[in-house]
Amino acid sequence: MITIRDVARIAGVSVATVSRVLNNSALVSADTRETVMQAVAQLGYRPNANAQALATQVSDTIGVVVMDVSDPFFGALVKAVDVVAQQHNKYVLIGNSYHQEEKERHAIEVLIRQRCNALIVHAKALRDQELGEFLDQIPGMVLVNRIVPGYEHRCVGLDNVSGALMATRMLFNQGHQRIGYLASSHAIEDNAQRREGWMRGMTEQGITPPESWVGVGSPDMQGGEAAMVELLGRNLQLSAVFAYNDSMAAGALTALKDNGIVVPHHVSIIGFDDIPIARYTDPQLTTVRYPIVSMARLATELALQGAAGTLDNGATHCFMPTLVRRHSVAPRQIAAPITL
Amino acid sequence: MITIRDVARIAGVSVATVSRVLNNSALVSADTRETVMQAVAQLGYRPNANAQALATQVSDTIGVVVMDVSDPFFGALVKAVDVVAQQHNKYVLIGNSYHQEEKERHAIEVLIRQRCNALIVHAKALRDQELGEFLDQIPGMVLVNRIVPGYEHRCVGLDNVSGALMATRMLFNQGHQRIGYLASSHAIEDNAQRREGWMRGMTEQGITPPESWVGVGSPDMQGGEAAMVELLGRNLQLSAVFAYNDSMAAGALTALKDNGIVVPHHVSIIGFDDIPIARYTDPQLTTVRYPIVSMARLATELALQGAAGTLDNGATHCFMPTLVRRHSVAPRQIAAPITL
Repeated sequence: MITIRDVARIAGVSVATVSRVLNNSALVSADTRETVMQAVAQLGYRPNANAQALATQVSDTIGVVVMDVSDPFFGALVKAVDVVAQQHNKYVLIGNSYHQEEKERHAIEVLIRQRCNALIVHAKALRDQELGEFLDQIPGMVLVNRIVPGYEHRCVGLDNVSGALMATRMLFNQGHQRIGYLASSHAIEDNAQRREGWMRGMTEQGITPPESWVGVGSPDMQGGEAAMVELLGRNLQLSAVFAYNDSMAAGALTALKDNGIVVPHHVSIIGFDDIPIARYTDPQLTTVRYPIVSMARLATELALQGAAGTLDNGATHCFMPTLVRRHSVAPRQIAAPITL
Repeated sequence: MITIRDVARIAGVSVATVSRVLNNSALVSADTRETVMQAVAQLGYRPNANAQALATQVSDTIGVVVMDVSDPFFGALVKAVDVVAQQHNKYVLIGNSYHQEEKERHAIEVLIRQRCNALIVHAKALRDQELGEFLDQIPGMVLVNRIVPGYEHRCVGLDNVSGALMATRMLFNQGHQRIGYLASSHAIEDNAQRREGWMRGMTEQGITPPESWVGVGSPDMQGGEAAMVELLGRNLQLSAVFAYNDSMAAGALTALKDNGIVVPHHVSIIGFDDIPIARYTDPQLTTVRYPIVSMARLATELALQGAAGTLDNGATHCFMPTLVRRHSVAPRQIAAPITL
């Protein structure tokens, strides 16, 4: 492999001079710079990014921690970070945390050791205090989908409770009263918040849903199918279901179809997130839109500002979800109710 | 930030000694090692990964280049690499190339500059010669879904032609003869190979499909929907369609449904890849299974072996796809044909 020493020899200068040229130091004459760059081109030398990061204390990578990059929601998040990164000529280093405390901590530690000066972190398992310590250490670290008190200007959040409340109220407006919830089995606050929004929507109508109206599964299609099958088996006479996310809602559609239950004619269903799949299920999913692309983009911009020391300490960044009306919700059938 | 100098001061040794301890050099006594590690723990010092990579010339990151991490196929690939990486205590650095020559080259260059000593590359736009030069430089680089002559032992490929031939023959066995192809608009060899397999299947039955039987779209759900609408508009009396991939097939299902055409009763459709979505469309997709997880896992193991200089030069790695029979293909209806 060609080294910086080869470049210095060909250019007839010291290794330190080559290093200064490659790191854009002002302490080099234009002539020297040209001689060095000619030697670089002649040898096909590639500067070592680790050496450059050490010399300049700035890395050209942006770190991002997500639950699982193969989940479509997190794929969209990582892609949005990548788009902004490219605009700034930076590259993306990812870590999967699988919503596990130890893996979240490790992923953040590794990215810090790589000297990523901008970090976008989706952390759900670590406590506020530990995240606060990381935030104190790394000015370019920003949290997405999490608000840590005292660091609101570096957190990009979504009002999950309002989104779930919206969904539940919409079902009530269509005449539904017995509304189930398909919960995520991951013990993360998003699930608690969406469940709280559903619960609030129910209680403001004078209904206290029993625990049996909640089916639990992993937050993916398989989990949604399993949770729906669980609810069906309980024979609860539900006429509508609110799902933790679109993947679970898509899985629930499959379970209902397999049981001869027609959506939305017999049962209405509403998802959360508005991932692309929601437009390709049959029927297309009515859902609560999570503006993850806008949020990830903003988080990346904030992280770069934090790294550059130009972040506005006064601003807060809480997004509000919106309802997307497609074809999986219909008025409750009074005449011939085929219910769960 | 705590530096290596602080550690050296507290431990009462030189910076070089601390560096030797942190890089596991044999030239340090057990006592010195313990003193240094106590200072590291006391100060909460995090070794700089860039400095370690420079000192040991080994980075703890594995690079992976894909078309687009938010595409479910590539999400599965990256996740499979990540699983192997974690087993080896390595982290994954990703670059998106969007199937563009310039971006593919740049993504590989950046990962090399980061001194990733293992690289898994899904490259479709770069020519064999340029990939060969990269492969010569980086012994830990492996290609996935691409065979470069002379480097077969470092390429993990799939027999796309056989997969497409299998799908076409299956449709013929069900009585279909007028079989369209939904092509990807990306000028990559996968599309050419799958189209060739379809063409071979047709010609072995004495049929030469005209150009009009091919609809073109981006290799995602939106593109499949658009390409299917295009085919429908041509009124070709097709009774079956083979799609470049499952995402396009899922989009085609939506287009057919919107036009009152029932799959598989009126028209049969078969996809390629077997991504999770294929199990959640209505009807579930019959498809050609692309073993991307196994392939990505093998590619990662080969890349790590290449980096360690233990790669078997004689082996080749070509996978064969398999048919997954679900519910989107049925015998051709002779009685009351409602065709495209």
